[in-house]
Amino acid sequence: MSRTVDVSETAGLLSSEDNILILTHKNPDGDTLGSGFALWLALDSLGKKARVANENEFPQKYAYMYYPNSIFGNDGFKPKYIVAVDVAESNMLGGLKRSYSHVNLSIDHHGTHVPFEDNLLCRADSGSCCEIIADIVDALGVNIDKSIADALFTGVCSDTGCFRFSNTTPSTLILGARLMECGADTKAINSLLFESKSRVKFELELAAMQSLRFFCNDAVAAITITRKMMEGCLPSDVEGIASIPTTIEGVEVGILLRELAGGGYKVSVRTSEKVNAAAICGKFGGGGHLRAAGCELPGNGNEAVATLLAEIEKVLP
Amino acid sequence: MSRTVDVSETAGLLSSEDNILILTHKNPDGDTLGSGFALWLALDSLGKKARVANENEFPQKYAYMYYPNSIFGNDGFKPKYIVAVDVAESNMLGGLKRSYSHVNLSIDHHGTHVPFEDNLLCRADSGSCCEIIADIVDALGVNIDKSIADALFTGVCSDTGCFRFSNTTPSTLILGARLMECGADTKAINSLLFESKSRVKFELELAAMQSLRFFCNDAVAAITITRKMMEGCLPSDVEGIASIPTTIEGVEVGILLRELAGGGYKVSVRTSEKVNAAAICGKFGGGGHLRAAGCELPGNGNEAVATLLAEIEKVLP
Repeated sequence: MSRTVDVSETAGLLSSEDNILILTHKNPDGDTLGSGFALWLALDSLGKKARVANENEFPQKYAYMYYPNSIFGNDGFKPKYIVAVDVAESNMLGGLKRSYSHVNLSIDHHGTHVPFEDNLLCRADSGSCCEIIADIVDALGVNIDKSIADALFTGVCSDTGCFRFSNTTPSTLILGARLMECGADTKAINSLLFESKSRVKFELELAAMQSLRFFCNDAVAAITITRKMMEGCLPSDVEGIASIPTTIEGVEVGILLRELAGGGYKVSVRTSEKVNAAAICGKFGGGGHLRAAGCELPGNGNEAVATLLAEIEKVLP
Repeated sequence: MSRTVDVSETAGLLSSEDNILILTHKNPDGDTLGSGFALWLALDSLGKKARVANENEFPQKYAYMYYPNSIFGNDGFKPKYIVAVDVAESNMLGGLKRSYSHVNLSIDHHGTHVPFEDNLLCRADSGSCCEIIADIVDALGVNIDKSIADALFTGVCSDTGCFRFSNTTPSTLILGARLMECGADTKAINSLLFESKSRVKFELELAAMQSLRFFCNDAVAAITITRKMMEGCLPSDVEGIASIPTTIEGVEVGILLRELAGGGYKVSVRTSEKVNAAAICGKFGGGGHLRAAGCELPGNGNEAVATLLAEIEKVLP
């Protein structure tokens, strides 16, 4: 049974515990890492022992957040209190799930959170988990210094597209201003998050754009990514590609087809306000949101597109 | 002689005048238009007659900012007081320069502003001109309603990349929060500004990415845009392409070559912190900033690249 706690209770729990292990989600992004390391910095400044853990090695990209004694490893640290940050459900812990089946506290911002912890602080109206962590840092009485500001700004910007996505609220912007005043290196963080990609990701994007074809009087556009195109790429390199078709004026339905190892395609559908993406994918056993949904389809790429188009044509405005 | 005025004096001047014509700069962007129409809305709410002018027709993209009686035309409006917004120098007025050689007041945020007006309010530390207009609206005693908030948010986001560029300050973010609270449709505005491009712009970007070649152990990458590739494109469609090469990890110098009508190439150079772009372009009679500079080079594309590489190789880290 998971008990709902507020910011003040969360700060109370953390204040009364020590030897705290902070779990971040698999395929870690800026928000889970920013949350984890900002919380570590706050606990460290209170004189507590703590570590941050992930199922894999922490990505070098975010190395500016990693401090000595912050990363969980083979240094004799014995966890006594387990905290998950930005983890929507226990499977998101990946390989950590088996080792830490008992989680004491979870801090999250996913509306879809599936409880797996003793105590849960979940605020679905927060654009990023770091916005909740900022309130916890305040409640712990810890000053937000440059290090904490860098970690929190990383999370806020990762999840809100640097205040560009619709999950951005006035509070998000006010926190951004405060973190900037606390010394966050916003220029370097934005450059890292939004103006930097590997050469293989650049080449994947180029190949994806080359594969783009228009259908239905240009109201539909489809990108196909084959397994060959993914050679040498990370799974995360596909991020953002599904939204390319609908950025083109006049495109009401954008399709991304990803070839699966076992045959067939993983399909991502993005739509304008005029078309329901979840309804289209629902026809094929998939689902999702109004503007973004997914499903799987058998056959080769042309067959998969033809199958989708037959349904899309019925709902085009 | 241009007299420097502050926000309070600017509000005083506007309060004491009527029949005010607001001039926006040529190739208008979200900031000059947001400034012009937000100021128009404020003056209109004070019962003053005013119009907004541009050398060409106002772009349809920003139609949500245009209200009845806001656009200067053939309706018998007789301008008595001329105000320029976001105009760094008089040539930026384009065709309006000849008709309005006497400008009474200029409101601008360009550090490079060349005075051409009786009274100047210029704040170079403002990421957008709309941030100054917001202060003027307050000084005029006008409430920021949804219409004004939409116009100001458009300008702020256009010039700061929605708070992503380094000209963003804590004040920018705090104003953003306030405009959101005043009802600005931030989701629609961001979608319009950042998630929408014409099909010809998409195809130009694709062709530009296809043309990208690496040099100097991949530390240099160059894109070439030919006149043929530009057929059917607007000059503004090239925006953003010059910064593509340096988004690729490891690229210290990015080059964009644009074929000129009279032969030769217009060159844009973007650099990492390790290389001085202005110094490279200075060798060829050009100039600019440390990280972004330009010049012109004769010859065909290969010759232009070879000429540049000979200089770049000397300064690569």
